[in-house]
Amino acid sequence: MLYCVTMEVRIPHDMDLERLERLKAEERARAQELQRAGSWRHLWRVAGRYANVSIFDVADHDELHAILSTLPLFPFMDIAVTPLARHPSAID
Amino acid sequence: MLYCVTMEVRIPHDMDLERLERLKAEERARAQELQRAGSWRHLWRVAGRYANVSIFDVADHDELHAILSTLPLFPFMDIAVTPLARHPSAID
Amino acid sequence: MLYCVTMEVRIPHDMDLERLERLKAEERARAQELQRAGSWRHLWRVAGRYANVSIFDVADHDELHAILSTLPLFPFMDIAVTPLARHPSAID
Amino acid sequence: MLYCVTMEVRIPHDMDLERLERLKAEERARAQELQRAGSWRHLWRVAGRYANVSIFDVADHDELHAILSTLPLFPFMDIAVTPLARHPSAID
Amino acid sequence: MLYCVTMEVRIPHDMDLERLERLKAEERARAQELQRAGSWRHLWRVAGRYANVSIFDVADHDELHAILSTLPLFPFMDIAVTPLARHPSAID
Amino acid sequence: MLYCVTMEVRIPHDMDLERLERLKAEERARAQELQRAGSWRHLWRVAGRYANVSIFDVADHDELHAILSTLPLFPFMDIAVTPLARHPSAID
Amino acid sequence: MLYCVTMEVRIPHDMDLERLERLKAEERARAQELQRAGSWRHLWRVAGRYANVSIFDVADHDELHAILSTLPLFPFMDIAVTPLARHPSAID
Amino acid sequence: MLYCVTMEVRIPHDMDLERLERLKAEERARAQELQRAGSWRHLWRVAGRYANVSIFDVADHDELHAILSTLPLFPFMDIAVTPLARHPSAID
Amino acid sequence: MLYCVTMEVRIPHDMDLERLERLKAEERARAQELQRAGSWRHLWRVAGRYANVSIFDVADHDELHAILSTLPLFPFMDIAVTPLARHPSAID
Amino acid sequence: MLYCVTMEVRIPHDMDLERLERLKAEERARAQELQRAGSWRHLWRVAGRYANVSIFDVADHDELHAILSTLPLFPFMDIAVTPLARHPSAID
Repeated sequence: MLYCVTMEVRIPHDMDLERLERLKAEERARAQELQRAGSWRHLWRVAGRYANVSIFDVADHDELHAILSTLPLFPFMDIAVTPLARHPSAID
Repeated sequence: MLYCVTMEVRIPHDMDLERLERLKAEERARAQELQRAGSWRHLWRVAGRYANVSIFDVADHDELHAILSTLPLFPFMDIAVTPLARHPSAID
Repeated sequence: MLYCVTMEVRIPHDMDLERLERLKAEERARAQELQRAGSWRHLWRVAGRYANVSIFDVADHDELHAILSTLPLFPFMDIAVTPLARHPSAID
Repeated sequence: MLYCVTMEVRIPHDMDLERLERLKAEERARAQELQRAGSWRHLWRVAGRYANVSIFDVADHDELHAILSTLPLFPFMDIAVTPLARHPSAID
Repeated sequence: MLYCVTMEVRIPHDMDLERLERLKAEERARAQELQRAGSWRHLWRVAGRYANVSIFDVADHDELHAILSTLPLFPFMDIAVTPLARHPSAID
Repeated sequence: MLYCVTMEVRIPHDMDLERLERLKAEERARAQELQRAGSWRHLWRVAGRYANVSIFDVADHDELHAILSTLPLFPFMDIAVTPLARHPSAID
Repeated sequence: MLYCVTMEVRIPHDMDLERLERLKAEERARAQELQRAGSWRHLWRVAGRYANVSIFDVADHDELHAILSTLPLFPFMDIAVTPLARHPSAID
Repeated sequence: MLYCVTMEVRIPHDMDLERLERLKAEERARAQELQRAGSWRHLWRVAGRYANVSIFDVADHDELHAILSTLPLFPFMDIAVTPLARHPSAID
Repeated sequence: MLYCVTMEVRIPHDMDLERLERLKAEERARAQELQRAGSWRHLWRVAGRYANVSIFDVADHDELHAILSTLPLFPFMDIAVTPLARHPSAID
Repeated sequence: MLYCVTMEVRIPHDMDLERLERLKAEERARAQELQRAGSWRHLWRVAGRYANVSIFDVADHDELHAILSTLPLFPFMDIAVTPLARHPSAID
């Protein structure tokens, strides 16, 4: 099942830099692992913002929440979820 | 170049039904033509709303506007455009 | 799968009264049919507004959209959908 | 009497971790106690967010406020309350 | 039980004037009847707007909704309801 | 002259607890003093929020501002003021 | 007593032109009468919008509402009222 | 003096088509005349919307308002004006 | 040229009190100097908020920005600027 | 390709002043370099705010994001991007 997910990242300015770099590296590793697994089907950067637009393909809401809430940067993200249904004019 | 485009359709309640059906048929034909041409790369329905989330792949802003502004239902849509850049963690 | 759905109804003031009454009767019949079928698990009125808060239990986004978009009053409703996951502190 | 309550949790990033874990454990214990008592009738996680949608069944506004304002995470939550009336099309 | 209710009235500009005057007269009669009955405890005009701030004292959400949804001007009002609990510093 | 005033209290999470308790006690004393004096005519808690809805009866804007801006918790409150006029359908 | 009042005018596109011109002429006459009387102390156009920023000097909320609600264009205006107190740094 | 002006055009769906085409032609002629005169220094289309972002260079607020409020499509536009000052890092 | 300027002051709760008092004293001195010079033509307190509504009369946008951006409390203010044109119904 | 970009700068009040001055100097140097290179075609200050309106002329979304996300003040800016297409009435 598909979901459009937008994530805005807001890093506190006084956060420890080393911790931040570690979190970012973990986030990247996790994002790539999920892409390879097929759950994180698309990942795009919103031009000009520390934000992304993503398409997830997962079994259900529980799996989506399990994935998003364990992202290393989850505590610093504002996330919006839009459930996507098949469009009657889509050809794929 | 990629754009995330969301379209909310708002049909006036007193619109002529025949005209509306004709516009919808034209919209569907145009949407499928653009998908086959590769410009309208993804088209999903927002569950529960007369709205869609789409990904367009076009040469530039002018081509995007030319496509969107000539959609048959354009006068009845509220459209938001987000330019998408490559994400550093994307694997594709 | 569960979804929290809020529906705000906005009836145009110049709508034909007979048509409106017919639509309302059809809406009620459909809502009760879906409740009996188990898809529309809860239906509450928002006190003071022509609106409701509902819980739907359906197979997937497509079924949710199929149900909502064919409600007789759908063209006159502003609908918001929130996908609900299991809460770790829920006891049921 | 029924209320739909949404709670968004916002934990300050520099909060003491031990204190946070203690608060979360207390919150969970309290939530389960209230569910067993029947006041907190439903508790769902909003997929992708540190938030929940809940249905409370209490005697009056005072009881609702007494419950919500003494939740261990109350100081870190943004809460919205919607009073729910019986819907004329509800079958239960 | 107390509720703070704000009502914004929006009259369509092309509404029949006679019908509007009749509705306003009925609204006034109903408002005064409810004030005398004690349900509509306070009624104030928002200075500069066709709007009011009101305090209702009713048995429960159902009674509140029954009252508000049968006001003659209900179809033309945007209503917000805030449930009021006893304040610990109130002296009355 | 009457004003509807809503106050949302937002206490910084790292505030000194002793100072906070002192401010709250002072706030309560001041609120009760003003209620006894007749300026703070009504004080209700917004169910589920650290917020109140109040009705003030004062000579003019200057007196209202003098009262509100010297409340002990004023620096931590987001305040909205609505001037109330007499409603033509009010019976009191 | 002073109030800052902003008025946004929204004329329905299908309004009778003759009626509109008559209302505008009456509005202008009334605005000038109130300025000469000293109640409408300042009247400025918001550059680029069919809107104004005004300062009213009246006895109380009732007088302000009586003035605003009888403006000929009142049914077509969205009005916001801000009560103004004396500023401690003002020299006048 | 420079102003950034954004204009969103909202054409009522039941507007007479001939009148609309005439207004659009007049709007275009006026826009080009003002560009040639140097007052309308830049005019860009917002991709995907019936809207523009413009830079005006005029003597003062009065001239700006005189220009904008006499645009043929002014009654159908939602306009936002941002006064632009010289930026200390600008090199032109 | 006239501008309506609203300023909301937001003082961080952990700011050094001595520094804050010094900034406030400087702000007051500067505000009075600018009022005497005629640039800051009106200065009113928004009743109930740490905010003001002001009218500035300056040569151009650059002068306005130079004044506002050097106010001692500028880093703690949220400022909105509205350019004011002459109103056709104004009598002054 | 053209983009309208607005940047709001929000400096945390407890930021180290020396670091801030260094970042500002670097931001200015980078802004001027990009203007000379032709990518940052216009840069204006929003009068009264620590904000700018800019026009960028770059090859694509990726170049825009590369530029914006490496600005020294990027972590402290709220950025909005509007893709600009050619306007049919533009004469340049």
